[in-house]
Amino acid sequence: MATIDRDVAARVVLQQCVHAKLQVRPHDENSHAEWVEIKRGMVVYVCFFKGSTKDLIPKIVSSLLNVKLSESDSGKHVSITELPGDVLIVPQATLGGRSKGRCMQYHSNAGKEQGMELYGLLIAQCQKELESHPQWSESGAALLYGTYGNRQVLKLDTNGPYTHLLEF
Amino acid sequence: MATIDRDVAARVVLQQCVHAKLQVRPHDENSHAEWVEIKRGMVVYVCFFKGSTKDLIPKIVSSLLNVKLSESDSGKHVSITELPGDVLIVPQATLGGRSKGRCMQYHSNAGKEQGMELYGLLIAQCQKELESHPQWSESGAALLYGTYGNRQVLKLDTNGPYTHLLEF
Repeated sequence: MATIDRDVAARVVLQQCVHAKLQVRPHDENSHAEWVEIKRGMVVYVCFFKGSTKDLIPKIVSSLLNVKLSESDSGKHVSITELPGDVLIVPQATLGGRSKGRCMQYHSNAGKEQGMELYGLLIAQCQKELESHPQWSESGAALLYGTYGNRQVLKLDTNGPYTHLLEF
Repeated sequence: MATIDRDVAARVVLQQCVHAKLQVRPHDENSHAEWVEIKRGMVVYVCFFKGSTKDLIPKIVSSLLNVKLSESDSGKHVSITELPGDVLIVPQATLGGRSKGRCMQYHSNAGKEQGMELYGLLIAQCQKELESHPQWSESGAALLYGTYGNRQVLKLDTNGPYTHLLEF
């Protein structure tokens, strides 16, 4: 068994990709939908819980960018900054769900305002930290992200999603 | 905070899709790679931990097939049998990872033999249970699955992955 015995303030699911495309604005009467795209890199699905604070963000950023969650061409495990690869951050409130009977409930999720603030901070601090790694910033790799509160219409192409869960 | 205070014997991540394609045999000198495909439905990434037993399987199957993890055309939350939609089961040992420093460790994962047995039982019991739902079995929906131990090369098309985590 894996013993888990602590409060969780944020939950992150990570998948590696060779290409991913995310809708950041749905189409309307006047214009087409808008999308962002990444090439090889990491998709970061994130959900904040009630009680999570901005003090948490540096720890999340450090884990996302430094833990060896990616696989190099030679099969070696490396961090996304070492790969170096793109990063796509996707807000994913459903990750906070808990089943009760046949229903999923989201009572532990952070409120919209708090969630949006933390999400913005996560993106800003990821960008800053990524740019401080010359190996990443000089590679032409990019950080992109979804629109908080939107439906996250996503297309994902992988060479093995290599799915990980991190909780903070 | 979401308080989590129990042992985990299996971890499942669920994503909804409109189409998914999974490699079940890589190419070799003599033949092309083999793939399975699903249309609209649910991708089930699963990882078993040490100490998990076959007694667990009915509970997992019941949750996967009865909890309202999907979204109907009208936006209503429904189970995969009510949708009705395809199911793609993907073994995903990386889900058992825990970060220690910069490395991911998989010490809690079930051994290969045990994992393979539980994976086979999960598929068999899912198939049996799905077929017992007339709404599902008469819809032409399908259950497909990846090859245990392989690299799970996956392509995923979603209208919002609607990612959920379930632990057992």
